[in-house]
Amino acid sequence: MGQHRIVRHIQRADADMIAGLGQCGSATVHEAQGRRGFVDANIRPIQKDRRLAGSAVTVSCHPGDNLMIHAAVEMCQAGDVLVVTNTAPSSHGMFGELIATSLMSRGVQALVIDAGVRDTSELRQLGFAAWSRFVSCQGTVKASPGSVNVPVVLGGVAVDPGDVIVADDDGVVVVKREEVASVLEQSRAREVKEAAARARLAAGELGIDMYGLRSLLDSLGVTYEN
Amino acid sequence: MGQHRIVRHIQRADADMIAGLGQCGSATVHEAQGRRGFVDANIRPIQKDRRLAGSAVTVSCHPGDNLMIHAAVEMCQAGDVLVVTNTAPSSHGMFGELIATSLMSRGVQALVIDAGVRDTSELRQLGFAAWSRFVSCQGTVKASPGSVNVPVVLGGVAVDPGDVIVADDDGVVVVKREEVASVLEQSRAREVKEAAARARLAAGELGIDMYGLRSLLDSLGVTYEN
Amino acid sequence: MGQHRIVRHIQRADADMIAGLGQCGSATVHEAQGRRGFVDANIRPIQKDRRLAGSAVTVSCHPGDNLMIHAAVEMCQAGDVLVVTNTAPSSHGMFGELIATSLMSRGVQALVIDAGVRDTSELRQLGFAAWSRFVSCQGTVKASPGSVNVPVVLGGVAVDPGDVIVADDDGVVVVKREEVASVLEQSRAREVKEAAARARLAAGELGIDMYGLRSLLDSLGVTYEN
Amino acid sequence: MGQHRIVRHIQRADADMIAGLGQCGSATVHEAQGRRGFVDANIRPIQKDRRLAGSAVTVSCHPGDNLMIHAAVEMCQAGDVLVVTNTAPSSHGMFGELIATSLMSRGVQALVIDAGVRDTSELRQLGFAAWSRFVSCQGTVKASPGSVNVPVVLGGVAVDPGDVIVADDDGVVVVKREEVASVLEQSRAREVKEAAARARLAAGELGIDMYGLRSLLDSLGVTYEN
Amino acid sequence: MGQHRIVRHIQRADADMIAGLGQCGSATVHEAQGRRGFVDANIRPIQKDRRLAGSAVTVSCHPGDNLMIHAAVEMCQAGDVLVVTNTAPSSHGMFGELIATSLMSRGVQALVIDAGVRDTSELRQLGFAAWSRFVSCQGTVKASPGSVNVPVVLGGVAVDPGDVIVADDDGVVVVKREEVASVLEQSRAREVKEAAARARLAAGELGIDMYGLRSLLDSLGVTYEN
Amino acid sequence: MGQHRIVRHIQRADADMIAGLGQCGSATVHEAQGRRGFVDANIRPIQKDRRLAGSAVTVSCHPGDNLMIHAAVEMCQAGDVLVVTNTAPSSHGMFGELIATSLMSRGVQALVIDAGVRDTSELRQLGFAAWSRFVSCQGTVKASPGSVNVPVVLGGVAVDPGDVIVADDDGVVVVKREEVASVLEQSRAREVKEAAARARLAAGELGIDMYGLRSLLDSLGVTYEN
Repeated sequence: MGQHRIVRHIQRADADMIAGLGQCGSATVHEAQGRRGFVDANIRPIQKDRRLAGSAVTVSCHPGDNLMIHAAVEMCQAGDVLVVTNTAPSSHGMFGELIATSLMSRGVQALVIDAGVRDTSELRQLGFAAWSRFVSCQGTVKASPGSVNVPVVLGGVAVDPGDVIVADDDGVVVVKREEVASVLEQSRAREVKEAAARARLAAGELGIDMYGLRSLLDSLGVTYEN
Repeated sequence: MGQHRIVRHIQRADADMIAGLGQCGSATVHEAQGRRGFVDANIRPIQKDRRLAGSAVTVSCHPGDNLMIHAAVEMCQAGDVLVVTNTAPSSHGMFGELIATSLMSRGVQALVIDAGVRDTSELRQLGFAAWSRFVSCQGTVKASPGSVNVPVVLGGVAVDPGDVIVADDDGVVVVKREEVASVLEQSRAREVKEAAARARLAAGELGIDMYGLRSLLDSLGVTYEN
Repeated sequence: MGQHRIVRHIQRADADMIAGLGQCGSATVHEAQGRRGFVDANIRPIQKDRRLAGSAVTVSCHPGDNLMIHAAVEMCQAGDVLVVTNTAPSSHGMFGELIATSLMSRGVQALVIDAGVRDTSELRQLGFAAWSRFVSCQGTVKASPGSVNVPVVLGGVAVDPGDVIVADDDGVVVVKREEVASVLEQSRAREVKEAAARARLAAGELGIDMYGLRSLLDSLGVTYEN
Repeated sequence: MGQHRIVRHIQRADADMIAGLGQCGSATVHEAQGRRGFVDANIRPIQKDRRLAGSAVTVSCHPGDNLMIHAAVEMCQAGDVLVVTNTAPSSHGMFGELIATSLMSRGVQALVIDAGVRDTSELRQLGFAAWSRFVSCQGTVKASPGSVNVPVVLGGVAVDPGDVIVADDDGVVVVKREEVASVLEQSRAREVKEAAARARLAAGELGIDMYGLRSLLDSLGVTYEN
Repeated sequence: MGQHRIVRHIQRADADMIAGLGQCGSATVHEAQGRRGFVDANIRPIQKDRRLAGSAVTVSCHPGDNLMIHAAVEMCQAGDVLVVTNTAPSSHGMFGELIATSLMSRGVQALVIDAGVRDTSELRQLGFAAWSRFVSCQGTVKASPGSVNVPVVLGGVAVDPGDVIVADDDGVVVVKREEVASVLEQSRAREVKEAAARARLAAGELGIDMYGLRSLLDSLGVTYEN
Repeated sequence: MGQHRIVRHIQRADADMIAGLGQCGSATVHEAQGRRGFVDANIRPIQKDRRLAGSAVTVSCHPGDNLMIHAAVEMCQAGDVLVVTNTAPSSHGMFGELIATSLMSRGVQALVIDAGVRDTSELRQLGFAAWSRFVSCQGTVKASPGSVNVPVVLGGVAVDPGDVIVADDDGVVVVKREEVASVLEQSRAREVKEAAARARLAAGELGIDMYGLRSLLDSLGVTYEN
């Protein structure tokens, strides 16, 4: 009970499907899976114009202590996204360019952390992408136990190791590993539908007509005045 | 009482005057009208280096429901700014690139919303400017009634339809429609005065001398020590 | 007791040492001095990719009143950083491009303020760096007494005039003036050590091995599972 | 434009109707007027178990300056509620037991303030009711102009002088003066309806049946599982 | 995928064990299960001096819409605690005394909600206990689908239906249903241990001696000065 | 540099003077010392109607670690107030009834902590007073070094060991030890002055007349309208 543990092997979704979700982006994927899985909007990117997806390697730390992040590195594979949570709120800068360098040597290029990051300028230069609640140079200790690859809650969303993280300028969305195929299919269907809608809207058609909303407004008792 | 309604026609200020306010920018206009009209500082731009002004088309939505934004589009003209509020706080991403595409087909290029936006990367690519409290891909429904072109409160400031929104990197300022001429005049006078002050300060004159503040400090009992 | 005063002359640390701290950056300096001195993470830069250090000229203002900032300008020398605090929380835009122009004529290029700034676009064009809690065009009066070059608290950190401010994308760190030499020495030692660590991590060595953390994990009762 | 002014005479709603709204309470009145007028939920009572209504005497202050509160006292009549706002956010303790004593000598027993109050223990002993965003002993100056009995925005809700404030443990609701009669009628109708509903629910009937929601759930695609 | 559903039957822990956890209180139970399960500290009681435990009946609502709370009532049994979450942040007063009356007719006496409650004065009079993020009379609609008795995240903690909620003045702790027996045992052991510690501390023994911390301080390099 | 240390002996102000400040209360003392020393308004009491003063025994902890609180107990004397800060923000429940029991055996009856407390119901029953930023049962470890009786910053206010803490329902004010006599004298003078003002205000005299504010309003350009 409450046992701290590090799980070595996790199941990952199909790499091509993960890449496909990354191309669709967070907003499309979020809609495609029924408007679920959006992580707290206060977890924001430190860079602009990155869009990616990867398998979650999850970490549960003691606030102000990044020991378990170090322990998590060797569980990461190319394309993974490191997901760091704490057992209580923390604004510490728990992650910086040294750990990023280590992760990049393994092909890992992204972090989502419900705490702070530091060395943000260096991370942008390295091309390592990060989403965090804070930017902070407040340092940490390496003293308290925690866990790697256990179920965590990230910004209000339950994440199991191997779930897929989709992240871009709009924030972070979690896709359950076992739903990746269906969510990707729905996302692509949505993209096709949106392309058609975009063309009609760009041509001047009104959404209120295109989506058939006039009768809804009327039935809701909304009236027009001049 | 509490009737939901959509008002088709609003009065707008003179287009040249609106453009003039846009050139002056939010800080100058805010000062020129007696330090009134600044919208909550937590409503921030999603882009850098845009400065604009436009007539407010106002929307009052149910939180998490963007039906009335769709209804508002056809009330917008070229140069307008869509102003979206909610009947209770909301962090939803109520606005994205499809509605922006629709608005741009009508010549509308800016949004101010007391909620979230999404597709922020796409909006920047489109050149559609937005100021919002959140960036969020959390989606919405289209189910609840609301109003268009009624008086609203935006980030603590009362906005009537047709009032002028001035927005840039410093945030959002509201100018009452009936005060546009006088505020523009005051703003331009302020620009002239500030240009003169800038030249003197750049040449090394001290503000404490230029503004005659030494005697004020003395009368307030502020003392100098070495 | 409670006397408002302006102190003309302050002691400053050695200019080369200050420059050295600026090259090291906030995260390194913060670590080097024992993880002390980091200012509240909500005080953020308005620009990207600036890294600097300077001697603090401190200001204590009444909220919404920038009189004392004007009084502080003539106490600033080339390379100083203006540090502005309030006697109660304030979100006003207490500082803009006119005062920045005045400061730049004296060789001052940076501000840290626990309140708002405005004219942020102009400040970036001028090359004047600023860290603030808010961006806001809400204007101020010039009516209330305060102090210059007295001890203040900045985002939870005590600052004496002449202490060194180190600021970059990661935030703001305060170094006590009398500790500058030792902190610089420690910072440079840390840089050397980090360069070596970076090379090993980039080559694929794990931090968990390099830092000898496996036995710590074991002693803390963290177990491994497949 | 931006002229500071004190308006001596305001129109008030019928005293019996105001009392009636006070008996209904904030939640009932809020519902009765179409779920409008609820002030920001962070404006909270300093006492428990007070429920009242009164005509708003409005004040617009400079943050950290309570001069205009002093000016407003003589505009208050028995039964009024003093409504204090600021031109920018403020946490100052702008109101305490001395002003409360003055107001009570005029029959005024309540304050709503979008800032701080102090002397809260004394206010509770006096029986003076207050709703505020902060409790704070941070003192103020009396130096800056403002206005009394002008339109203000209180916690996101537009308030005109003479509008009715309904306040209790659930917070603060604003009723437009010209709607008082109809809102009171709707509130009483709602009370009758709720009494009937309460009796049925207390007897074990389910709301899902009483409100006829089963078919709605079905039409929304909500399914039942064992 | 994303299917909205209502699960009728859930497994509950043993009633005596649940009662036992309620006697221990949140802090003890939290410690006993390894410092896990504490819900966001901003979810606070509306009353003082209530301490209880019950089985979670979980609800997932659309923000500003309490339809699913109505649907959840008939799934509740005596002693349950209703746990209400939203698919995005909400400050609405989603729950009031009518639903409480309905729940009390079934023997349910407590609510934990990550949103607002209203009728707080009436709830206290009824003896219905509530923990919420907000107090708000902002009303809701009954229009959007959601789920009952599905896994939810409550203030950062994953809750499955039937998990045990322990709540008191210190906040809310979640105990996994399958761990109830062991957590209760640990909690009672902890109570015994704490009673002994309390007696020694009350008699003047120092915790630093009782817990043997002097050597730890020494090994951490903490020095004593006079 | 950055050395962790525990200082055994601190200087305290005169006990009668401390008691005198406690009788005056936070708002009076704050005003009497020139509106300085008010601690962040978000640090709030867990009880009602306690008013006290005591000498500060200061603690600097690592977030989520209460080792140094245990170390601080033996440095406390009857009448002291324990002041707990962290090197980074923390919401942990770092203090509960066991440590309170220990402190009460030494005659210490109050805590101010910039973090969380737990066992709040028990603390109220014990009569131990506490002011905190959070109430939280989130537990802590005892593993990281810190300091006792060193200068700290508490909610934005610098506190030296031996400074006097004045706390009540309005919050917490810090009086510098060396200013206690003069602040007490000013506080008592203020009480006399306020008693006279109270009598005049209660008799119906207006503050605007009593304080001579009519000419100030006039000089500020505030006009009266009917």
